Amino acid sequence: MSDGKARLGNYFEDFAVGQVITHATPRTITAGDVALYTGLYGARFAVQSSDVFAKAIGYPRAPVDDLLVFHTVFGKTVPDISLNAIANLGYAECRFLEAVYPGDTLSASSEVIGLRETANRASGVVYVRTRGHNQDGKTVLQYVRWVMVRKRDPQSPAPAPVVPKLGERVDPATLGKSVPEIGPARYGFSLAGSPHRWGEYAAGERIDHFDGMTLEEAEHQIATRLYQNSAKVHFNQLEQAQGQFKRRLIYGGVVISLARALSFNGFANAFHVAAINGGRHVAPCFAGDTVYAWSEVLEIAEIPSRRDIGALRTRLVAVKNRGCAAFPLRNDKSEYADGVILDLDLWLILPR
Amino acid sequence: MSDGKARLGNYFEDFAVGQVITHATPRTITAGDVALYTGLYGARFAVQSSDVFAKAIGYPRAPVDDLLVFHTVFGKTVPDISLNAIANLGYAECRFLEAVYPGDTLSASSEVIGLRETANRASGVVYVRTRGHNQDGKTVLQYVRWVMVRKRDPQSPAPAPVVPKLGERVDPATLGKSVPEIGPARYGFSLAGSPHRWGEYAAGERIDHFDGMTLEEAEHQIATRLYQNSAKVHFNQLEQAQGQFKRRLIYGGVVISLARALSFNGFANAFHVAAINGGRHVAPCFAGDTVYAWSEVLEIAEIPSRRDIGALRTRLVAVKNRGCAAFPLRNDKSEYADGVILDLDLWLILPR
Amino acid sequence: MSDGKARLGNYFEDFAVGQVITHATPRTITAGDVALYTGLYGARFAVQSSDVFAKAIGYPRAPVDDLLVFHTVFGKTVPDISLNAIANLGYAECRFLEAVYPGDTLSASSEVIGLRETANRASGVVYVRTRGHNQDGKTVLQYVRWVMVRKRDPQSPAPAPVVPKLGERVDPATLGKSVPEIGPARYGFSLAGSPHRWGEYAAGERIDHFDGMTLEEAEHQIATRLYQNSAKVHFNQLEQAQGQFKRRLIYGGVVISLARALSFNGFANAFHVAAINGGRHVAPCFAGDTVYAWSEVLEIAEIPSRRDIGALRTRLVAVKNRGCAAFPLRNDKSEYADGVILDLDLWLILPR
Repeated sequence: MSDGKARLGNYFEDFAVGQVITHATPRTITAGDVALYTGLYGARFAVQSSDVFAKAIGYPRAPVDDLLVFHTVFGKTVPDISLNAIANLGYAECRFLEAVYPGDTLSASSEVIGLRETANRASGVVYVRTRGHNQDGKTVLQYVRWVMVRKRDPQSPAPAPVVPKLGERVDPATLGKSVPEIGPARYGFSLAGSPHRWGEYAAGERIDHFDGMTLEEAEHQIATRLYQNSAKVHFNQLEQAQGQFKRRLIYGGVVISLARALSFNGFANAFHVAAINGGRHVAPCFAGDTVYAWSEVLEIAEIPSRRDIGALRTRLVAVKNRGCAAFPLRNDKSEYADGVILDLDLWLILPR
Repeated sequence: MSDGKARLGNYFEDFAVGQVITHATPRTITAGDVALYTGLYGARFAVQSSDVFAKAIGYPRAPVDDLLVFHTVFGKTVPDISLNAIANLGYAECRFLEAVYPGDTLSASSEVIGLRETANRASGVVYVRTRGHNQDGKTVLQYVRWVMVRKRDPQSPAPAPVVPKLGERVDPATLGKSVPEIGPARYGFSLAGSPHRWGEYAAGERIDHFDGMTLEEAEHQIATRLYQNSAKVHFNQLEQAQGQFKRRLIYGGVVISLARALSFNGFANAFHVAAINGGRHVAPCFAGDTVYAWSEVLEIAEIPSRRDIGALRTRLVAVKNRGCAAFPLRNDKSEYADGVILDLDLWLILPR
Repeated sequence: MSDGKARLGNYFEDFAVGQVITHATPRTITAGDVALYTGLYGARFAVQSSDVFAKAIGYPRAPVDDLLVFHTVFGKTVPDISLNAIANLGYAECRFLEAVYPGDTLSASSEVIGLRETANRASGVVYVRTRGHNQDGKTVLQYVRWVMVRKRDPQSPAPAPVVPKLGERVDPATLGKSVPEIGPARYGFSLAGSPHRWGEYAAGERIDHFDGMTLEEAEHQIATRLYQNSAKVHFNQLEQAQGQFKRRLIYGGVVISLARALSFNGFANAFHVAAINGGRHVAPCFAGDTVYAWSEVLEIAEIPSRRDIGALRTRLVAVKNRGCAAFPLRNDKSEYADGVILDLDLWLILPR
């Protein structure tokens, strides 16, 4: 009798700086995944929705939604990195480097780039740089993520702390390499749903995306399984009923995708998420919550040598159970305001 | 700061007779959409389910379910036509003109063909003729729909009323053009699930489709997002809780598709919806409701020059929370009977 | 007026030994079905998940999950075999004979191989051997199933009882014919998620698969409709509320697929279900139940002439609302223990 063949995930002691982990289960992304992704979030960006639209601007066909790529790669890392995580602390330096198409097969690996025991010695923070690559070995996505992971034994010694220095934002000069050169008048603004080009946005501009969507258990579970993300907090009500929240936690990526889909109303031409500069899941989200979103334009950046596209750095904020007409973010004490569940710092690409 | 880039939909004042609106987000229909559609309704028509069956009767492969085409085209019109709708009043002259296959890209446009302010001046009825077309520019679907839309300002002047004259039914001589000529003995009645050909149905015949299906929030939300239909009443429980029904309203198209799927039991060989002569969402449907359906054959029509197929005009009635053994339709006062939620007038195509 | 065209399913009297029934609705399996299957169960077996991984070991592309094939074929038999079933009593001699790929079209037929009236004369047991075949006429799956079916009239005479002799287990020498010859070092154990080969398992070894998943109504309904399984007990809450359980029953195949997906944690390299020797749905499962699973290795078998793969006979047990650390199976009275819902006897194929 043995439990030795079933894996229980890594503890803080199992990680070492420099270690490279090959994650299991390569995944061929298909038109089926794309359809289910549409059914789960309702995104309406024309480039990802229409082969004809995508071809008109130089893609070979409609690329897969960037965030579906992100979640697929992220899901692979869970059994190795975060099965024993207490909290997902942050993201940085996330770049979408190659377009992914149905038929592409994604694999992932992570390098441990930092380790720091927490003060109470019961856990530690693990920093990994994760790479998702396609069947040709090209890196399609990379990002840094740090998570608080339980120690197997609080008394065990910890390595000297290593905390990586992370960029505050991705350099906009490096963005957009996966976007084809869009010839003049090839991009159909009417079909895309908005006349607003890159140049029409201004730093400081805030946009309420208006719509709210109420999440159901079946929806977030189907989404999270689609990404082959096996983190138990999303699926096991019997166990969660004994925990802090009494409920299944919705995978943070579901909130990211939902907020991105809602942001269509205001950013219909922001067809590519080129980078995630940073992100924080401010508060948990549960089935029954209604999610709204708003955005603020933080920075306008030209991309050198590209006259066809430009970059907008935006803050995308998801809020639960209250509308975003007042752009909720901080309260009087400079803490996140009630209801704020996601604060994401993005680079978006739009046609000029 | 501006909300100017997020759209809040058109009001009655924004429409003018003759105006043509190009709707956003072209959509490539894929095998993924077809699979999810099957998962949502469980339709079992052999032509749409099997490439082999479809090829045997002359299609290049299995065509996409007609109603998936309808909902996809309909979904595109929502942000422009009915985001501020009070009620979806009716359909007419809906014709399915070309078969749609996975890989086809659908776009939609609508022409305003009628406007009539309502008596209380707070709203008006907008009539549009919507066309869905494929990547070759061919019209795959067209229909007339009229909706009651809020006025931005009840005091604003209204144009002279224009009410289009609409056909009571589509001329059966024009039906079936998207159906290949079915050679003798090419259609497998056993595999299709029923021996009953077109000629075996009689006007006045009524069929109880027996089965009932209970709808869940996750199901109708996934369906409605799959169609990229962004009407907020289907998704936002927080807001709906303040409204008349206290619940999210299920998109009427979900009821149409479910009734059609249930009608397989009795019309297994009615493999093509050629036209919707008219339709009315009699009452709202909510998660937790159990939907049943029954049909009445209204008319039997030959299609000139076609010896292989014929048309049946049927009334398809969906009923909630009661079975259809007694064919519920009207009560003693000639109002719709309790439980009736859909009254649809269809032309169906069957092999002869 | 007639109900004659809607089918109400067969009763015990409608079956005769030797009768062959062609089931309706051939079904082309697509990448869409595969994606939805992943979303519903979250399986992570590399062979079915990645075209690249599958090709590396000799498949032309990733084959469809064996159990998706099973459920698809099973679903077709429901309207003919079990619409009036009181209970699904068992399976035997189930063999997966050919790999199925997206694009393949599955059809099914069943031969009645046994009939036995029950003692109270109100029902009888019907034994059928069902075959699923692809577009080339090749049998991809066959199995024996027996169900208790209502009699139309308890007084009607019953045929002489015929009870087929069924094998206790499929001969392992016949297994694995659909698996390509896997060249040395072609199978990537890291990518597959486990280093454990066939030779590392021992008879008597028990593995707790740890994770539990809570099922939702929308999930099992979508799954069961995906298989075009029309058994009403899974869908109609209004009717079920009047019955023994007051709830919709989850299709047993959903539990099988979920237990199989959970068994990845411990059997990551068991990439092919080659046979189901027998199976029993011990107790019903409902939405809200949390399903766990554990396995016991019953037998280790070489496959003659194959040095690349071997077979493990395992018992796969699904349990609801309690973990499997204690491997629950029987209670003191040798009855199934509380919570046990599935007891399945499988042949699995692993690389050597």
